[in-house]
Amino acid sequence: MNRKTRALTITACALCLLAGTLVGQKNSSGNQGVAQVPGQLASIHLVSAVPDGQWTLPAGDYANTRYSPLDQINTENVKNLKVVGIMSTGIPHGHEGQPLVVNGTMYVVTPFPNDLIALDLSKPGFPVKWKYQPRPNAQAEGVACCDVVNRGASYADGKIIYATLDNNVVAVDANTGKEVWRTLTGDINIGMTTTMAPLVVRNVVMVGSSGGELGVRGRVTALDVKTGKQIWVAYSTGPDKDVLIGPNFHAFYPKDQGKDLGMTSWTPDQWKLGGGNVWGWLSYDPETNLVFYGTGNPGTWNPDMRPGDNKWSITIFARDPETGQARWATQLVPHDSWDYDEIMENVAIDMQWQGKMRKLLIHPGRTGFVFVLDRETGEILSADKFQPVNWAKDYDLKTGIPAVDDSKRVHTGQYTREICPSSTGGKEFVPTAFSPRTGLLYIPAHNTCMDYEGIQVNYIAGTPYLGSSVTMYPGPGGYQGEFMAWDLAQGKEVWGIKDAKFPVYSGVLATGGDVVFYGTMEGWFRAVNARSGEILWQFKTGSGIIGDPITFKGPDGRQYVAVYSGIGGWMGAAAFSSLSLDDQYAALGITGTMKGIKEATAPGGALYVFSL
Amino acid sequence: MNRKTRALTITACALCLLAGTLVGQKNSSGNQGVAQVPGQLASIHLVSAVPDGQWTLPAGDYANTRYSPLDQINTENVKNLKVVGIMSTGIPHGHEGQPLVVNGTMYVVTPFPNDLIALDLSKPGFPVKWKYQPRPNAQAEGVACCDVVNRGASYADGKIIYATLDNNVVAVDANTGKEVWRTLTGDINIGMTTTMAPLVVRNVVMVGSSGGELGVRGRVTALDVKTGKQIWVAYSTGPDKDVLIGPNFHAFYPKDQGKDLGMTSWTPDQWKLGGGNVWGWLSYDPETNLVFYGTGNPGTWNPDMRPGDNKWSITIFARDPETGQARWATQLVPHDSWDYDEIMENVAIDMQWQGKMRKLLIHPGRTGFVFVLDRETGEILSADKFQPVNWAKDYDLKTGIPAVDDSKRVHTGQYTREICPSSTGGKEFVPTAFSPRTGLLYIPAHNTCMDYEGIQVNYIAGTPYLGSSVTMYPGPGGYQGEFMAWDLAQGKEVWGIKDAKFPVYSGVLATGGDVVFYGTMEGWFRAVNARSGEILWQFKTGSGIIGDPITFKGPDGRQYVAVYSGIGGWMGAAAFSSLSLDDQYAALGITGTMKGIKEATAPGGALYVFSL
Repeated sequence: MNRKTRALTITACALCLLAGTLVGQKNSSGNQGVAQVPGQLASIHLVSAVPDGQWTLPAGDYANTRYSPLDQINTENVKNLKVVGIMSTGIPHGHEGQPLVVNGTMYVVTPFPNDLIALDLSKPGFPVKWKYQPRPNAQAEGVACCDVVNRGASYADGKIIYATLDNNVVAVDANTGKEVWRTLTGDINIGMTTTMAPLVVRNVVMVGSSGGELGVRGRVTALDVKTGKQIWVAYSTGPDKDVLIGPNFHAFYPKDQGKDLGMTSWTPDQWKLGGGNVWGWLSYDPETNLVFYGTGNPGTWNPDMRPGDNKWSITIFARDPETGQARWATQLVPHDSWDYDEIMENVAIDMQWQGKMRKLLIHPGRTGFVFVLDRETGEILSADKFQPVNWAKDYDLKTGIPAVDDSKRVHTGQYTREICPSSTGGKEFVPTAFSPRTGLLYIPAHNTCMDYEGIQVNYIAGTPYLGSSVTMYPGPGGYQGEFMAWDLAQGKEVWGIKDAKFPVYSGVLATGGDVVFYGTMEGWFRAVNARSGEILWQFKTGSGIIGDPITFKGPDGRQYVAVYSGIGGWMGAAAFSSLSLDDQYAALGITGTMKGIKEATAPGGALYVFSL
Repeated sequence: MNRKTRALTITACALCLLAGTLVGQKNSSGNQGVAQVPGQLASIHLVSAVPDGQWTLPAGDYANTRYSPLDQINTENVKNLKVVGIMSTGIPHGHEGQPLVVNGTMYVVTPFPNDLIALDLSKPGFPVKWKYQPRPNAQAEGVACCDVVNRGASYADGKIIYATLDNNVVAVDANTGKEVWRTLTGDINIGMTTTMAPLVVRNVVMVGSSGGELGVRGRVTALDVKTGKQIWVAYSTGPDKDVLIGPNFHAFYPKDQGKDLGMTSWTPDQWKLGGGNVWGWLSYDPETNLVFYGTGNPGTWNPDMRPGDNKWSITIFARDPETGQARWATQLVPHDSWDYDEIMENVAIDMQWQGKMRKLLIHPGRTGFVFVLDRETGEILSADKFQPVNWAKDYDLKTGIPAVDDSKRVHTGQYTREICPSSTGGKEFVPTAFSPRTGLLYIPAHNTCMDYEGIQVNYIAGTPYLGSSVTMYPGPGGYQGEFMAWDLAQGKEVWGIKDAKFPVYSGVLATGGDVVFYGTMEGWFRAVNARSGEILWQFKTGSGIIGDPITFKGPDGRQYVAVYSGIGGWMGAAAFSSLSLDDQYAALGITGTMKGIKEATAPGGALYVFSL
């Protein structure tokens, strides 16, 4: 795409600060009404917003902006931020995701064994109100591919709803801590686990599966918020009836059109082990009444074992939340060769685009591209590289097909060298934030490359079904991580903070005070000027940060910021004493990008709360 | 003893503040010279002192005062204290003991697997300089009676010297982190572990054994600081030649005089399983050149299985550090019936006592008595109850024998009810601090009682050899813990901060700013006015505090305070999810005193550093 033909419609910052234009007063949906955002750009319309001072959904809002209008903490005073509360979870494993804040109570979901802890924000030291212990099946610990993580809960209908590693979804009374219902959504004996945060839209709780490295056939399961009873299941592979592709489905691109592609784009039966798991983030747009999510890598990692496009792996889906029926699907990487799991967040915003307001879906991808889609149709409006990428030259926006460099394709029994990015991607699942005040997307990015060999592998249920041998190492340019501000309309970086040693592996928070927050694998929690990229403040937490910061207003009216500190997950597992960095193939090859991590930090597990 | 006959010689505080008298300029011994202490009472002479701004020994000084003259942080400004650094150890087990600070580097010893972590105090976030990993035998984890704790290291001769749980003593170059020597001092196959911090006096490294609940015969082993070669071993039971009782020995009391009492005060051979382990704190007095320590409970806990005084269990020993030869021994509890392990610290100070300056040894005891001994002779000068005590009426200071209430004695197959204090004592091993400015001893105290049945038990090497069934519960008065200031001369409490819910199970730090620091099992770290007992500041750390605060001067000239947060140990193990509080006999009966601990805190493991 010719970037110059794209009209620049984001108002310059000087103007927006003067104007303070308020836009986007639309109907609210449940607790997700669109708040007035002081200083919001006129060119941007927020689809949903973080409720006043609370944090009730994984991303704060349905749209997955992770933007809160709270502005007590701003670029001037953030230097005075200090720790006001710390709570250990007692579990030295990866603390991904984020807590919730509802009505003066904070809710923390721990890694396995997935306790839910309610903290009273109205009292000094934030004492525990209650702990709910679901006691999941311990076999899940052995089955989980990449540490025993959990990415959080949703609040809905007076309940805290989240998944346990053994595939139970539990609903817990937010006041009493009593279990209201519990529903098993999958079988750990076939290698399925559940790590993602459910999203609740009206009456429907949606949650997806993990297990792409164990031949698990990906799916999203929908449950009734009142009873926990199953409403629908949408698989990522198989015949249309399993994928919930019906008469309302219309794929934008011809490549994604046709009957039963989830079956016919595979060798016979391989789709049954075909991955396409859904372990990232769900977003929702009340206006179009569509839920969006991306699917993971196809199984196995060895592409020679699965000729064909392997639909619907690495695909963005739009579905009706009530019925689960797909509206559209756009496969981003046909016949994946690199584990470019595209379960990343999809940020729904309305924005001026080439002269007119459009309903966009922003998908910063593991492929190393930021995709801007039309969320009504699935059309790719732009795809721009945000980190070094060599597996594909670009995307043909007419066909939706990437121009793959065939020399970077992977085959059985031979090493393909210097593929960029590595399987950990231009970014991983850790979510971006989008500020309607700056119009910028804040991306926690990686710059790593890999050597990759396809391996013939046989399937044994519930065991690794990987099919590859991979080693990773830092990408070109002398850095591995970059926290960056991205201009969507221009398709380019505005500023970036590079990390020579480690990928950036935490989520991001943007605020009305024009401060963006993120963490490093070494444990620094940072506040950055959203416009200039200047680091305004930082605090070294006890362990590496791979969780997502949130902000809220306390019962005392003060603004707080909270984040988990606790290294782990796929990349962070390199910090565990049980994993030797001498083995360059360990943990699917990430060890080569984690040199020095054992010295730089140590496992831990704690919630940190900060305030002025 | 008639308290009224004891002359009150501590200067009143108003006077001492005016006077600011400096006393006690004596010869230094190594890095343990006696500093000038502004505001020190004229009636007190410090035997040794914390070196300027550092913390090189477990208790800061040889004398075990845990008093630092640093006074930047004082009663006026301590309210501004804030967290400036946190480091997770990644080990959610009891973090007892304290770090060291030597020449701008902090040294942290973790619980098993006993890593030694060096932190650079000159850089932001206190980054890790190096980690030394001794990789102890994992069998030690199973053998340790009461969590896999470690109580710290000593600095000497350019080395950090500490013990690993599997009974190795290691010496690590303080600059490079390279192991200089490693010496095995005992056999985990017989149930021996090592948890205490060694003390180094000139050329001699001394360390004691743990394992009183597994029939381990207690001992102190001395090693050469240069080579790690064994110099002497002093057993707590057995013939005089094993106990290193020779011609220089003179016990003050007739009850402690006689040949081979460590053998003859037992039924034949029982002394071989007789306990008297040494897992607490060593102190040293350069003037008398004596090392002091207390020995633990006799084995088994069932007194009917071991008629006799059971020497030298529950005994204070004074020894020559070079030869190990005992100078005196005073058994505090003959024929123990209650597990009154007396491994508590012994604080060496010179003080006006009944009209003349005397060389004292202060021993706040698990028995519920504060003992003041003459450290030249072992004479008990006073023994005053500091918490509810009913096992004995008092001590006859002429004979050194407690007036035991025979109805509180324990026997095989029958429950003795309402014994106070419980086996966890009026205090546990967590150390007091003594301020030469206030003349007060600051005691982390418990108020718990117990029901206790003796059980016939057989010995199997390396397995529990307990011989009792115990349940514990809160003592009289509606509280379980008390942080208290104790007037030694008056033998009475000056002020106390009572904790309704939990025992106080952290060590104490006293400072030249008249601030004393301690922590709670819920995780509060508190600064208290040393004179009034007013809580001036508190911060809720991530986990319960059972470690010992220290203070030091950073490379930037600022005063810092540091403490571990990480619940565990004997009592704190109740916070672990693996231990059900429903079992009132679990963890040797402490569960009845720990109701609510799982809600109040969670396991963790982190170093916290605070500054203004």
